[in-house]
Amino acid sequence: MADIQAFATQFTQEYYSTFDGNRADLAKFYRPASMLTFESDQVLGVENIVAKLVGLPFQTVKHAVSTCDVQPNNNNGALILVTGQLITDGESNPLNFTQVFQIFSDGTGPFVFNDLFKLVY
Amino acid sequence: MADIQAFATQFTQEYYSTFDGNRADLAKFYRPASMLTFESDQVLGVENIVAKLVGLPFQTVKHAVSTCDVQPNNNNGALILVTGQLITDGESNPLNFTQVFQIFSDGTGPFVFNDLFKLVY
Repeated sequence: MADIQAFATQFTQEYYSTFDGNRADLAKFYRPASMLTFESDQVLGVENIVAKLVGLPFQTVKHAVSTCDVQPNNNNGALILVTGQLITDGESNPLNFTQVFQIFSDGTGPFVFNDLFKLVY
Repeated sequence: MADIQAFATQFTQEYYSTFDGNRADLAKFYRPASMLTFESDQVLGVENIVAKLVGLPFQTVKHAVSTCDVQPNNNNGALILVTGQLITDGESNPLNFTQVFQIFSDGTGPFVFNDLFKLVY
């Protein structure tokens, strides 16, 4: 990763664009060993992660990234901390959220190994 | 780490207790390869990290942890996502923050390899 900040910016744009467009397509970001902690619920593996995200109780969502900080990890990858706001369905008030992605690489390219999401009240 | 959630809870308690007590003592949590991104400012190494934290423009600070989620990483360590609130000096309004710690282990025990901190507005 020559330019890790550019990678992180591009990754988060693609991730949230996919999330807001068609959640089932988020499968491409995960692998069998991937972990998701979503509002303190823990799930493991691509099928379980996608099932969790697809099953969230809203029809539409729009994420807006406020900040995207990144550091290299020890695996030729990246640790990304996002803060932002999201709006679901017809709500008028956005919610603050924070999310961390740990990106590793395998033969097929970068993927999410660790994913932790929290709303911030 | 037999009980990673207990480790994460204990670590964050000790970290913020040290931060709020005597910031110079935070050196014990870092190593020469440690990275800190504090409000998007990046510093590397224990001396630079401690200098950054000690030099923050407040005299007193009190952190209160709201949530502490954790996952194992690939290095017999832990990836911890904290959300909470902090109050500096005589301010009356707490600020929301989020912080991620990537914990690795070496011969001397666990230490912080990645540290990213962001205020959430």
